[in-house]
Amino acid sequence: MNYPCGIKKKKTVSYSNRGMNLENDINVTNEYYLNNKIAVIHKKPVPITIVNVDYPSRYEAVIKEAYFKTPSTTDYNGIYRGKYIDFEAKETKNKTCFPISNIHNHQIKHLKNIIEMGGIGFLIVRFSSLNETYLLKGIDLFKHIEDNHKSIPYNYFKEKGYLINMKINPRLDYLKILDDIYFGGENHEKTC
Amino acid sequence: MNYPCGIKKKKTVSYSNRGMNLENDINVTNEYYLNNKIAVIHKKPVPITIVNVDYPSRYEAVIKEAYFKTPSTTDYNGIYRGKYIDFEAKETKNKTCFPISNIHNHQIKHLKNIIEMGGIGFLIVRFSSLNETYLLKGIDLFKHIEDNHKSIPYNYFKEKGYLINMKINPRLDYLKILDDIYFGGENHEKTC
Repeated sequence: MNYPCGIKKKKTVSYSNRGMNLENDINVTNEYYLNNKIAVIHKKPVPITIVNVDYPSRYEAVIKEAYFKTPSTTDYNGIYRGKYIDFEAKETKNKTCFPISNIHNHQIKHLKNIIEMGGIGFLIVRFSSLNETYLLKGIDLFKHIEDNHKSIPYNYFKEKGYLINMKINPRLDYLKILDDIYFGGENHEKTC
Repeated sequence: MNYPCGIKKKKTVSYSNRGMNLENDINVTNEYYLNNKIAVIHKKPVPITIVNVDYPSRYEAVIKEAYFKTPSTTDYNGIYRGKYIDFEAKETKNKTCFPISNIHNHQIKHLKNIIEMGGIGFLIVRFSSLNETYLLKGIDLFKHIEDNHKSIPYNYFKEKGYLINMKINPRLDYLKILDDIYFGGENHEKTC
């Protein structure tokens, strides 16, 4: 079933796998970029507050109590073609829009700071029911949020965003989009 | 008591506060940089593997079992003057040298990748017994490691590194050093 943006579905299943497919696609893509010396982009660890750690042996530590923290930055950053790259990636099952509540205010503020500093900041959103993944420039994200704080229609991604094609390798070649929009269409792929 | 590099002191005390002073100094410095729109540099969260999470209520999650992972990147990265910045920060009580075992191989490889990509990569080391903090360029770190995998003598930091002065605000102004060595001596501080 699909729910319109803003209406919350009752949570009856574990959310531990939520977003894992996109995350996995980005991680293997980043690995490809790293191994082929195209870019160095990593996912940041999940921010947590550690309350209690057990040391059953000298070299082993077991975290026994910790809590998830609200992230103050985006999940991914790194360097590509000498430029600082920063983005957040989210998956939604919704077919008509992307609920902005999926992104924390801190993360939007962070993307603004990055772009102000001369970095490249953007959002990757997968509409998993449609099997489409879009890259939306930070600037277009901010423009939309000024008008509508709740959600971004799917059509806005179609109009302002860039569809990222799935391939064998690299699986989700989002840097090709950056080539087109930030580096004047040059391609990072080595031609024969 | 001080121990020469390579000789391990018996660990009888908790290490949870190890490196916290330098970390704290860097964090408040980064906050100053952020608030004054000088740079956006953040510490990455500690990488962990989560094994077991309890959900006592719908909105609360308690991590009940997790383990520390070996970091595959450095602790700090961000953007300054349009450039990608990446560094690791370590504290040692040793007065004569810095044991390289404090840095993981992955982290050194990561710094190499960053510099190859055109980023600025370096190491910040505090000799806490001497109350001196040095910035060592990645390139000088790699040069030394080629000759000696075990430790970097204090004198190498004095010779090749850059002493970072402590101030009121920003507390540990390491970007001033980058101004001098990477940006031709220009200063980020606004002059009256």
